[in-house]
Amino acid sequence: MVSIHNEKICTRQSVGKLLSVVLLGVVYMAYVLIGGVIFWKLEGDQMESQIALLKEERSILLQKYQCLDQNSLEELLILSASKDGLSLKGNHTSGGFWKFTSSAVFAATVVTTIGYGNISPRTTLGQIFCVVFAVVGIPLNVVVLNRVGKYMLAVERKFCNIIAKKTNHQKCMIVCLHVTSFLISSVLYFVVPMLLFQEYEGWTYSQAIYYCFITLSTIGFGDYVADSNQDKEYPDWYGCILGVWIFFGLAWLALLINHAIDLLERINAYHKSGRKNHDET
Amino acid sequence: MVSIHNEKICTRQSVGKLLSVVLLGVVYMAYVLIGGVIFWKLEGDQMESQIALLKEERSILLQKYQCLDQNSLEELLILSASKDGLSLKGNHTSGGFWKFTSSAVFAATVVTTIGYGNISPRTTLGQIFCVVFAVVGIPLNVVVLNRVGKYMLAVERKFCNIIAKKTNHQKCMIVCLHVTSFLISSVLYFVVPMLLFQEYEGWTYSQAIYYCFITLSTIGFGDYVADSNQDKEYPDWYGCILGVWIFFGLAWLALLINHAIDLLERINAYHKSGRKNHDET
Ligand SMILES: [K+]
Ligand SMILES: [K+]
Repeated sequence: MVSIHNEKICTRQSVGKLLSVVLLGVVYMAYVLIGGVIFWKLEGDQMESQIALLKEERSILLQKYQCLDQNSLEELLILSASKDGLSLKGNHTSGGFWKFTSSAVFAATVVTTIGYGNISPRTTLGQIFCVVFAVVGIPLNVVVLNRVGKYMLAVERKFCNIIAKKTNHQKCMIVCLHVTSFLISSVLYFVVPMLLFQEYEGWTYSQAIYYCFITLSTIGFGDYVADSNQDKEYPDWYGCILGVWIFFGLAWLALLINHAIDLLERINAYHKSGRKNHDET
Repeated sequence: MVSIHNEKICTRQSVGKLLSVVLLGVVYMAYVLIGGVIFWKLEGDQMESQIALLKEERSILLQKYQCLDQNSLEELLILSASKDGLSLKGNHTSGGFWKFTSSAVFAATVVTTIGYGNISPRTTLGQIFCVVFAVVGIPLNVVVLNRVGKYMLAVERKFCNIIAKKTNHQKCMIVCLHVTSFLISSVLYFVVPMLLFQEYEGWTYSQAIYYCFITLSTIGFGDYVADSNQDKEYPDWYGCILGVWIFFGLAWLALLINHAIDLLERINAYHKSGRKNHDET
């Protein structure tokens, strides 16, 4: 009877934990989406007027250099691709890069501190909002990722425990299980995305794994950015998968890095206490 | 007699602490510099052959479009500045961007995860080395910055204590001191660099403060990068000051963010324990 009661409390607690993690996730999502809308409004108008200006410039250039036509101008400009996507290339510049989806992605790259920089705010208002948005968003992001990471770890431990119970808690079995779960995670966060990017972005395997690492480590050079090549057609689920991958990948890597730092500090403390004991004797 | 003995131990301990921080700093510096040399070797040659290719392309273009000369080609290309600095603009492309200093700066942007991306490795070998370099470098960077941040905090606390002792430990005085030291740090890490960038980079005040924040938060869009405008002449001390600013600024901000997260978690735990007590009664 007591055991059933305890189990009930346990279940209630774990449901409560899951709910609090989900709630935190919803707050985080809402924060990023609202930020995206604001960036879209702040930067979108500016972008449109800039595009109009560029079109005007292009027609002036074409008049000035009579030997050039639209095609040869493109040939010239293709050699130096502009980073923010604003260029004299092509006619389909309408809409620009500050659409709603890309604004939301931009907001996500701010709070995660990845900061690819393939798009970045140009207006003073946009830049000020970006700073304010990041001041709140970065700590929120750290808290959410830590919480999600801890939850992922707890789920993994529970699963390992259930299997360990069935094998009478053999130590070698437990180590095996942890190594297996680490390997599965690595495949999930590095190998599967690598194959996906190789297929949909046309990158080589080494470029794809380089992109995966540069993104999940939050370095984010912006030399390769997924889902941003205007010449490619992406499937609808592509952006969603990308977001899920980055979110859980960051949580997983944060956990891993925290463990590594913890280990380093423990080794350091162990050495220190060893030296102290040696000094005292 | 005992007091003098204690003081001696205290001094010896604090000297030891300083030494260990300095040693860690030296290891960190050496790591970054060695990384810089390797990037320089790996990417430099590739860059030179790319520059030769670009020069060839330029002469072909000038022959093809007879109405263009070097100046008008530049006028065309200035409209779409290439992100990695490789462009058909000008004749002084020799040397390229992968000089030793810029390679070391690049190595520093990798380990700090700022990752401006104004230069990034193009060769497969360079990309692989970048991943390996970051796997070791990022945790090292976290440990060093945490250690330096803690040391800065300890020095600040000691200084505050000395003044507090002289004023008989008035609580209001202690709070005042901490607020003052926070304000001085903010000026040191945001206002002084802002004035410097406004002067030497020709940015507006809002652009300069935006750059300071985007850098120290490690977002690093790369839309503004100090000490990288080829048309400007920078004084010799400029690069050094920049490095010192980023290093101590990151340590200070890491400390601040850690405090903020700690506070958030404590408030959360306090609320939870309050609710638990409420449930139990
Ligand atoms: K970054
Ligand atoms: K970045």
